[in-house]
Amino acid sequence: MSTSSNSPYHHGNLRQALLEAGLIILEKQGEAGLGLRDLARAVGVSPAAPYRHFDSRAALLEALAVTGFQRFSARMEAVAATRPDNPMAAMGKTYVVFALQNANLFRLMFSPQLKKDARPGLAMASSAAFDTLRHVVGGDVGAGRIKALAAWAKVHGLAVLLLDGQIALRAGEDTEALIGEIISSL
Amino acid sequence: MSTSSNSPYHHGNLRQALLEAGLIILEKQGEAGLGLRDLARAVGVSPAAPYRHFDSRAALLEALAVTGFQRFSARMEAVAATRPDNPMAAMGKTYVVFALQNANLFRLMFSPQLKKDARPGLAMASSAAFDTLRHVVGGDVGAGRIKALAAWAKVHGLAVLLLDGQIALRAGEDTEALIGEIISSL
Repeated sequence: MSTSSNSPYHHGNLRQALLEAGLIILEKQGEAGLGLRDLARAVGVSPAAPYRHFDSRAALLEALAVTGFQRFSARMEAVAATRPDNPMAAMGKTYVVFALQNANLFRLMFSPQLKKDARPGLAMASSAAFDTLRHVVGGDVGAGRIKALAAWAKVHGLAVLLLDGQIALRAGEDTEALIGEIISSL
Repeated sequence: MSTSSNSPYHHGNLRQALLEAGLIILEKQGEAGLGLRDLARAVGVSPAAPYRHFDSRAALLEALAVTGFQRFSARMEAVAATRPDNPMAAMGKTYVVFALQNANLFRLMFSPQLKKDARPGLAMASSAAFDTLRHVVGGDVGAGRIKALAAWAKVHGLAVLLLDGQIALRAGEDTEALIGEIISSL
């Protein structure tokens, strides 16, 4: 790999550095604050440099969402690997906590703007992210599929209601404890 | 009530006409297309006229959300009044269908932008909207509250996943039938 004359990054490293900086900007400022020029400034390269890796802002957002699904998958696999007594509850809690810890990334991953149909890389990352969950719940057809969709709806709804400030915590109440209680209750 | 010299509306009628036009613009163009001037043009009054009823765009959005919660309440009460065999399932389906039929209004009702804490009228309308659901699920404290939050999370999650195009329908599959199956399955 060659080093660009005006960049301190090797080719592959720059892509990774752009994604890391992008994730930080996304969480701090929201999707609106995220442009390829801002990103170039953040990692200290020329304004044109990010275009070697992402041909548009949409391509950058897609790559960030893919990264999000990969991290989400890794968390799900890690939880399943601990062989919890109640895998559904453990994975459900992990889902909601991931959403709260990565609010803007989570919103981006499930944004209707990102057309999964038109973007095979994103569709694959998103589908792979749910493999572990699907495996635990019981498949992709018939009653298994309905059960998986119901489980998904529950944890996704809880994540969204908490993210959007719709569930009011009682005085002294701990968010993670409440998440655990709600997920165990159905 | 007096009629304004430059308006075909009685005072109370103009407020109602502005809200009706606002709901139509909201569904057609989304929240971004909704300004007090657009609204004045839509109902055929002077640009200043809407300010007699809403002192800002935020006040208009709040009034639209309140209207949304009132319509939502009426639907929930109507379903409960039919004494369905499974009230939770019937109300859950009504919740999701309301969201799909009033997509932008539903998003507005649960938007984190609208600060319910700071707006007593909105907080009251929103709380009243859930009275019927709370009554069926079993209360507002202890295990009843947790059960109510879990039921809410499930139907809200299903609504959001469908609105955001995250759940792919199979060929020939009917959305309402799928909603019914998912809600019955947990």
